[in-house]
Amino acid sequence: MKPDALVFDAYGTLFDVHSVVRRCEECWPGKGAALSAAWRSKQLEYTWLRSLMRAYRPFSELTRDALEQSCEMLGLPLSPAQEEQLMGEYLRLAIFPDVALQGLPGKKAILSNGSPDMLDPLVKQSGLSFDAVLSVDELKVYKPAPEVYALAVKRLGVTADRIGFVSSNCWDAIGARNFGFRVFWINRGGVPVDRLGVRPDAVLKTFGELREVLR
Amino acid sequence: MKPDALVFDAYGTLFDVHSVVRRCEECWPGKGAALSAAWRSKQLEYTWLRSLMRAYRPFSELTRDALEQSCEMLGLPLSPAQEEQLMGEYLRLAIFPDVALQGLPGKKAILSNGSPDMLDPLVKQSGLSFDAVLSVDELKVYKPAPEVYALAVKRLGVTADRIGFVSSNCWDAIGARNFGFRVFWINRGGVPVDRLGVRPDAVLKTFGELREVLR
Repeated sequence: MKPDALVFDAYGTLFDVHSVVRRCEECWPGKGAALSAAWRSKQLEYTWLRSLMRAYRPFSELTRDALEQSCEMLGLPLSPAQEEQLMGEYLRLAIFPDVALQGLPGKKAILSNGSPDMLDPLVKQSGLSFDAVLSVDELKVYKPAPEVYALAVKRLGVTADRIGFVSSNCWDAIGARNFGFRVFWINRGGVPVDRLGVRPDAVLKTFGELREVLR
Repeated sequence: MKPDALVFDAYGTLFDVHSVVRRCEECWPGKGAALSAAWRSKQLEYTWLRSLMRAYRPFSELTRDALEQSCEMLGLPLSPAQEEQLMGEYLRLAIFPDVALQGLPGKKAILSNGSPDMLDPLVKQSGLSFDAVLSVDELKVYKPAPEVYALAVKRLGVTADRIGFVSSNCWDAIGARNFGFRVFWINRGGVPVDRLGVRPDAVLKTFGELREVLR
């Protein structure tokens, strides 16, 4: 059964957040991978903690906080110029090479943690086109809170069971399944599915497999 | 100003969760530290994700899920006997050597993510004694949700500004400060304070310093 709409996660799913590794590596040779992994991990942690504390701040701010925190944790000096350079990298992340939207059925939307100041320039420069680019920012809470996924239902005018949700982040895929979407987890890294009660409806190795399973 | 009550976090603050390293090391020589760090990290991640998904399960269950997940991630085979042995370890965690409650002012309570099936046997075998042992389990949501900290106010009959909260987990210390407690962060590892908007009122190197600052 083809969905009436496909909703995509942005960071890590359409856009490769680890493309910042190269830039980190330029700043601190030999430490790029460690910093970029720590940065991503802190960034997610801060979205969950601030949501639970009901102390929302935009993703751009959390991303900057996570960068500064990670540099301090790893003992890497971070100049204002380097900080701007690395934050700027988030506005021009690479699209994963296996991402193609042509031939996929239904409406297409992005549903992202990204605040509009980060997300809109990124989507614009990517050349990809969507029926809607939705940010958690209007709700002031991050994924995987159910109200985030409900935003797509409301804004697309499509019921949850007719929406296919696509994410490379297992916890996001599970959050969307928990809400009621039909979920495709793009497990590029071949990691084990998280033990969080529900499981994605389908596990794909690449984004390219999506067209096959929706044919 | 002396607080009317002191509320302590349990895991990582009074009790050393990394004392399971030894047992992990026995099971998988050379991998004990990596497994125990991954286990703790997944355990916390699952508390935050399940709270946000509104899909609460008791801490004992999440701890078991996190153990199985971590073993699978690291490619370590986990037999049912090993799983029981490691879960059993959580019921007899070591008390940090710097922990002493004698001479501290006011009522003493524990406020923990631990479900009663884990927390009660642990406290009992420790020999420590408290006016209250409070678990998030009755609220079905984990720290740092504000309602968790509110439970201590309600059950101790002491207002938030008269409660001193003690935790080694920076995110927990910040969650308690965000709620309105006077917070003492025991930073045994000398790690940087997390960038989450508010900061602990005091940063101590050891639990033992608590008596000095409250004198």
